[in-house]
Amino acid sequence: MSTDVPHRNKHHRPRHRKVPPGSPPGTLVADLGAPPPVIQVITYGPEGVIEQEIQTPEAIAQFVGRWPVVWVNVDGLGDVDTIRQIGEIFSLHGLALEDVVNVHQRPKVEAYEKYLFVVLHMLLAGERLATEQLSLFLGSNFVLTFQERPGGDSFALVRDRVRKNQGRIRTAGSDYLAYALLDAVVDSYFPALEQYGERLDAIEQEVITRPDRDTASNINRIKRDLLVLRRALWPLREIINSLLREGTALLAEETRTHLRDCYDHAVQIIDLLETDRETAFGLLDFYLLSISNRTNEIMKLLTIIATIFIPLSFIASVYGMNFRPEASPWNMPELNWYWGYPLALGLMAAVTAGLLRYFRRKGWLG
Amino acid sequence: MSTDVPHRNKHHRPRHRKVPPGSPPGTLVADLGAPPPVIQVITYGPEGVIEQEIQTPEAIAQFVGRWPVVWVNVDGLGDVDTIRQIGEIFSLHGLALEDVVNVHQRPKVEAYEKYLFVVLHMLLAGERLATEQLSLFLGSNFVLTFQERPGGDSFALVRDRVRKNQGRIRTAGSDYLAYALLDAVVDSYFPALEQYGERLDAIEQEVITRPDRDTASNINRIKRDLLVLRRALWPLREIINSLLREGTALLAEETRTHLRDCYDHAVQIIDLLETDRETAFGLLDFYLLSISNRTNEIMKLLTIIATIFIPLSFIASVYGMNFRPEASPWNMPELNWYWGYPLALGLMAAVTAGLLRYFRRKGWLG
Amino acid sequence: MSTDVPHRNKHHRPRHRKVPPGSPPGTLVADLGAPPPVIQVITYGPEGVIEQEIQTPEAIAQFVGRWPVVWVNVDGLGDVDTIRQIGEIFSLHGLALEDVVNVHQRPKVEAYEKYLFVVLHMLLAGERLATEQLSLFLGSNFVLTFQERPGGDSFALVRDRVRKNQGRIRTAGSDYLAYALLDAVVDSYFPALEQYGERLDAIEQEVITRPDRDTASNINRIKRDLLVLRRALWPLREIINSLLREGTALLAEETRTHLRDCYDHAVQIIDLLETDRETAFGLLDFYLLSISNRTNEIMKLLTIIATIFIPLSFIASVYGMNFRPEASPWNMPELNWYWGYPLALGLMAAVTAGLLRYFRRKGWLG
Amino acid sequence: MSTDVPHRNKHHRPRHRKVPPGSPPGTLVADLGAPPPVIQVITYGPEGVIEQEIQTPEAIAQFVGRWPVVWVNVDGLGDVDTIRQIGEIFSLHGLALEDVVNVHQRPKVEAYEKYLFVVLHMLLAGERLATEQLSLFLGSNFVLTFQERPGGDSFALVRDRVRKNQGRIRTAGSDYLAYALLDAVVDSYFPALEQYGERLDAIEQEVITRPDRDTASNINRIKRDLLVLRRALWPLREIINSLLREGTALLAEETRTHLRDCYDHAVQIIDLLETDRETAFGLLDFYLLSISNRTNEIMKLLTIIATIFIPLSFIASVYGMNFRPEASPWNMPELNWYWGYPLALGLMAAVTAGLLRYFRRKGWLG
Amino acid sequence: MSTDVPHRNKHHRPRHRKVPPGSPPGTLVADLGAPPPVIQVITYGPEGVIEQEIQTPEAIAQFVGRWPVVWVNVDGLGDVDTIRQIGEIFSLHGLALEDVVNVHQRPKVEAYEKYLFVVLHMLLAGERLATEQLSLFLGSNFVLTFQERPGGDSFALVRDRVRKNQGRIRTAGSDYLAYALLDAVVDSYFPALEQYGERLDAIEQEVITRPDRDTASNINRIKRDLLVLRRALWPLREIINSLLREGTALLAEETRTHLRDCYDHAVQIIDLLETDRETAFGLLDFYLLSISNRTNEIMKLLTIIATIFIPLSFIASVYGMNFRPEASPWNMPELNWYWGYPLALGLMAAVTAGLLRYFRRKGWLG
Repeated sequence: MSTDVPHRNKHHRPRHRKVPPGSPPGTLVADLGAPPPVIQVITYGPEGVIEQEIQTPEAIAQFVGRWPVVWVNVDGLGDVDTIRQIGEIFSLHGLALEDVVNVHQRPKVEAYEKYLFVVLHMLLAGERLATEQLSLFLGSNFVLTFQERPGGDSFALVRDRVRKNQGRIRTAGSDYLAYALLDAVVDSYFPALEQYGERLDAIEQEVITRPDRDTASNINRIKRDLLVLRRALWPLREIINSLLREGTALLAEETRTHLRDCYDHAVQIIDLLETDRETAFGLLDFYLLSISNRTNEIMKLLTIIATIFIPLSFIASVYGMNFRPEASPWNMPELNWYWGYPLALGLMAAVTAGLLRYFRRKGWLG
Repeated sequence: MSTDVPHRNKHHRPRHRKVPPGSPPGTLVADLGAPPPVIQVITYGPEGVIEQEIQTPEAIAQFVGRWPVVWVNVDGLGDVDTIRQIGEIFSLHGLALEDVVNVHQRPKVEAYEKYLFVVLHMLLAGERLATEQLSLFLGSNFVLTFQERPGGDSFALVRDRVRKNQGRIRTAGSDYLAYALLDAVVDSYFPALEQYGERLDAIEQEVITRPDRDTASNINRIKRDLLVLRRALWPLREIINSLLREGTALLAEETRTHLRDCYDHAVQIIDLLETDRETAFGLLDFYLLSISNRTNEIMKLLTIIATIFIPLSFIASVYGMNFRPEASPWNMPELNWYWGYPLALGLMAAVTAGLLRYFRRKGWLG
Repeated sequence: MSTDVPHRNKHHRPRHRKVPPGSPPGTLVADLGAPPPVIQVITYGPEGVIEQEIQTPEAIAQFVGRWPVVWVNVDGLGDVDTIRQIGEIFSLHGLALEDVVNVHQRPKVEAYEKYLFVVLHMLLAGERLATEQLSLFLGSNFVLTFQERPGGDSFALVRDRVRKNQGRIRTAGSDYLAYALLDAVVDSYFPALEQYGERLDAIEQEVITRPDRDTASNINRIKRDLLVLRRALWPLREIINSLLREGTALLAEETRTHLRDCYDHAVQIIDLLETDRETAFGLLDFYLLSISNRTNEIMKLLTIIATIFIPLSFIASVYGMNFRPEASPWNMPELNWYWGYPLALGLMAAVTAGLLRYFRRKGWLG
Repeated sequence: MSTDVPHRNKHHRPRHRKVPPGSPPGTLVADLGAPPPVIQVITYGPEGVIEQEIQTPEAIAQFVGRWPVVWVNVDGLGDVDTIRQIGEIFSLHGLALEDVVNVHQRPKVEAYEKYLFVVLHMLLAGERLATEQLSLFLGSNFVLTFQERPGGDSFALVRDRVRKNQGRIRTAGSDYLAYALLDAVVDSYFPALEQYGERLDAIEQEVITRPDRDTASNINRIKRDLLVLRRALWPLREIINSLLREGTALLAEETRTHLRDCYDHAVQIIDLLETDRETAFGLLDFYLLSISNRTNEIMKLLTIIATIFIPLSFIASVYGMNFRPEASPWNMPELNWYWGYPLALGLMAAVTAGLLRYFRRKGWLG
Repeated sequence: MSTDVPHRNKHHRPRHRKVPPGSPPGTLVADLGAPPPVIQVITYGPEGVIEQEIQTPEAIAQFVGRWPVVWVNVDGLGDVDTIRQIGEIFSLHGLALEDVVNVHQRPKVEAYEKYLFVVLHMLLAGERLATEQLSLFLGSNFVLTFQERPGGDSFALVRDRVRKNQGRIRTAGSDYLAYALLDAVVDSYFPALEQYGERLDAIEQEVITRPDRDTASNINRIKRDLLVLRRALWPLREIINSLLREGTALLAEETRTHLRDCYDHAVQIIDLLETDRETAFGLLDFYLLSISNRTNEIMKLLTIIATIFIPLSFIASVYGMNFRPEASPWNMPELNWYWGYPLALGLMAAVTAGLLRYFRRKGWLG
């Protein structure tokens, strides 16, 4: 699954499974736009390491068994035959291969007799939120990883540790390699979540100082991104837990200790995610309050202006009437009074003063 | 249950059970509008397949036992006698038959001594959201399926696999057929949920660019549809789980492996559903914010216009008063001033400039 | 408990227990307004049935043991002595009898050594939502039911089945009778929930077409009714479950199968209830959106009118000022221009056209 | 804890523990305002009862063991020495005594080797919501109760039952006394919750007929009171459950039956509480809707008035302009028309009629 | 983790792990701004106590084993070598040391073979909400504590108890010391939560009497602080629970009793926290209602003023029109009537009276 979240995104959600309902299980159908596979083999032991990019799956056979661990990494799922051949070399189940190709799987771990099958979502490096499916097979002497496309993974440092014999990776078995890869995937979520946290902080400032219409869209977009991340992260925790529970045969005690550490990291990431989500929800409430507040203030200003000037205008209108004083002594005699105009202005001033005092008492004037 | 959700729907919710409270259990009463049954029998084994539409249930007997698997599919529940006869042929419990006819059942699985009874809701193909009840009996050598009406099911590809001997369906037993049918039902939900996801994306764009009154109705309608789907889907997951737990005797190990795959799909669908539901709830909040924002902007415009022009009009009104300058030197001497009119216009210009500066400082003018 | 929900209800919630805190347990105090008891005895077996209304509890003794099952139904809890005597005849615990009389009990099931005690709320037939407490004792050869008042129960069809020997009720034991009564109580909730569903549909239409102030009150009232139903229905499910778990000794295997069916119905009812509740909550949100939308539209109209006419009126006011053209060439020379009036009207028309274009560009006019 | 909830309350929440963080456990420090202790001893058996108020804890010793049960009730925790001496007489643990004095404990039950220690919150009789901590020790032949201050408890009827030998309290052991006290505490919550229910009903009426600013404050205050009650009540249920689970040695079978009844009451109270809480939340929503509705209606009126009169005033203003008809035939010739004034009035009437028809079509005029 | 929450905070959330994804586990990298370590050793037994500040970790060795308990406290994590050396002295696992240095850990407890490792967040004394990570190792004869920086801890009273031989701390083992430190950490949260409670009470008063724009910001800020506290406190409870469950070998029975007391305190704190959180959420609702109410009142005033004066002004405008009475008997003959002006004023008075009565009937005038 490649979940790009562009600015105005149409590809937000994964497209559905390509296989029509009712098809026989285990049918391998490549995604139309899937890139052709690039196969990289790394095999190593305490004494050395061989790293090679190969063209055809048959070439894998020659690496198996020569060194304690062989790691086959496939970038790109565009060629179903390649995947089927690799499956045959390592005796993988058809349903598992189907899940490798249908990249919209929910993260999960499945224990087969001779190997463990793990599906998870890997965060791609880059500006936008994008994930791809990583399918990992762990056997007693091999690790297979299938990625949707070349580049973007977080495995560079793991490869370096193998090449440069850093830490205990070369002396440990395939289970330790699988742990190292999982750990790299888990840790790659930290910077992403940190970034969302910072954006939420920035939006909070924006709501306090000058909220505008984009603010709501931004919060909404973050909420949706976090929802996507949530779908990737919660199962991740379960996966590591399942590995600890079910993978007894394949995982050495030391690897299990490290996996428990990895589990702690996953819990911590979910913690951050949920905190971010709750913050985002809180921001929406805060924003709504903020707008209501502003509308209230605008209304106050309008009401003050209207309430003061409408009566004044009325008074002026009254003395703008054309009743003829000549026709009767009752017809607007004020117009001919000596103090008529000053009295009218005085009346207006009095009304204004009265209203201003009223507003001040209500606390509307600051 | 046939839950059509038309544009202005009255039939949104299932009508209640026709049997009055207190009736003896096992009473079979056909729904008034239920169509007459169409019975199709497919029986097959590794060597061949016979497919036939029959008129009377008695004809079923001749197919039972001839081949390893017999699948009887009944479309339409309008004739209670037919269902009772089929029940007798396969020794089905009266309460189960009652549930077949009363099509408002909650999805469930019940383990009887010699067969499993499964009730679930099947999505009908078509424009609108509509489901019908599928009742499925799984015995050691038979599968019975009862649908509310002909057409609309997702079993065409399964029939094809039987006819064309695709995959391992012909060599496997009745349990595998039941799995294949369940799998087809589960997978048929994917396109529907995908479609809701797309509609939600479209509505999100609508809220950003030009929300109107229909927008709220649309979100509300999607929310209700998703609520209906939820009632169908959550039990679906439990059902597959129950099958895995309870159906030990009838399900072969290989079928169980496939059922677990099917379970994963159900979990994935529920995941999509819940994501869609949360998105719909989020859209409502977003829409409310959006409207509040727009109201705020409208108020701002009104307030700017009113606050500028009401004082101006007041000034004009004052000099529209008819106090007679002749009556007194205090009566509107301005009217006779040489610069009277320009001064009045200047006063108005000054007031306008002051207010504009005030609004600019408040950030209301762009 | 008799929870009438009248139009303007004061009796919405149950009154508290009459017994003051600190009283010894098992104190029987009749409710003031409780009607006097009417005792009906039905005793039956496969061979026949006797049905009789009796005056004093002593008369019950002659029915016990003559036929396999005796069912004593008491309508009205106004006479504490009667209840105590029945309690003595069947050796019932004092705390259970206290719960019979204090009709504000939470639904529950209690297993005593020789009998099961079940308390639940029964929906009364009638226009308004009203429930009463049903207390049921199930012994190996008797069923006792205590209702708050005569009439309103859902047991007519059960009595008919006994009288007319329909189904297997006459051949089965007291446990089957208890199941039949429970089933009748459970099924009586279906029509009520259906009715709420229909009312919610109607209110949804109302919100779309013409919401008014009563709409909110109606939604609120339905929400409260559903809350009352919820308090009755959730424990109902637990009760049937408890019976299945604890009532091993008293319930025959066949009765348990039927009870499981009854349990399914209870789950289905709760499903309907929760769907209705969620729909009601959704309607409130929808209604709020709807009002915000309408307020927004009203504001738009006001703003359009005010924004167009306030400047026009201002222009007219300016030329209504009385500055004397005679006093100075700068004093309103326009008034004496040949094209003065047409120019003024033209200015107004230009302003109007400009503002209309502005509103059209904002999308406010259509 | 004494949680008074006065009209404008500052003491709403419990003050924090007086002991500074890091102090050794078991430090007894009396609260500053705590009243001096009043000690009452009641000792009884089937044959008789002695009831006496004593001055010093040493006097307790003479009562212990003379009769099957001794009940020491201490009102007021102002004297730490007294409490320590009582603790020594009955061999109580220091941590338990600390919890007696620090009256901000969460309700809990602790099983020590020879006695059970129960902390709960007791509702005080009176106008306002106020609770105090009740600490209860149950030994095989004693019950100790510590209350924060004299008066206000619900134990008068229990004392009467002991004095007057009502029910089986005198023949039963100390466990039955403890049950009776617990039951009195639990039952004392019923009237309080009933009162909140009635206030919520009254507020609902208020929202329907004439909501004002106090309405929101009232709902808010009830919500906070219910939150306080919730903190007291949920642990209460757990406590009774713990007693049933852990108190095997000290509780007779008959007492356990009664405790189960008491447990039912606690569940029922929590049910009422949660219903009240949900009702309060629903009222807030309803109130918000109600205000939005009213604002909408006010806006409608304003818009109708403004939309009708602003154009009318504009027409009048036009003919109030002073363009000189003498200066040109185009300058306001209408002023000299024979039907000028009636035509102007007719124009106004026509505009009014048109707008009224518009509003009627929009359904704004009733 | 040092979570300062300043007025305009950027450092609200923890920065992410410094170690890049894919690094080998157990890599110790000091935080850039971390202060250099200050090491304090306290060793004691029933007979005496030695307390000393040391410069290099090697000096620790001489204290180990001389007295029953040695407590090494390290303030400041700026020097990785120091920490590694201490780890070697006490044979600590590399992953645990990594968690000590990477101070963004989620609180947790890990049982190693010879020691327990506890991570938790300690509230710093001071004006603002700030926490730091406390890492604690408990061995059979040692306690190690690592704090992020000198000062700010809550251990002063614990040190005093050791120095002055208060309570049983000197006679008990290292487990009791660990308990005492945990207890001090837990209790230090009480004043902070109390303070938030008081601020919420103050804000509630503010909302009732005079809400302004800062009110919303304040509630929002408290909500976020409480969210931070929540992330620290919920795991704290789990930690103590885990200790009770897993720490069997290292914890004496008496210490476990005290830990259970400490567990009760943690539960109580979480209770307070959740109450505060719910109160904060309730305040937001209340505030929104309050603003809506005020807007409603402002609108009412505006509508009253406008509805009264707009018609009055219209009447005045009509008689301000300049139709020439001379031109026709129909042209504003009112202007020449004897009672013209008084009649016009009377008409205005009548309109005003009518509108006032209308508003009074609507209940808008008080």
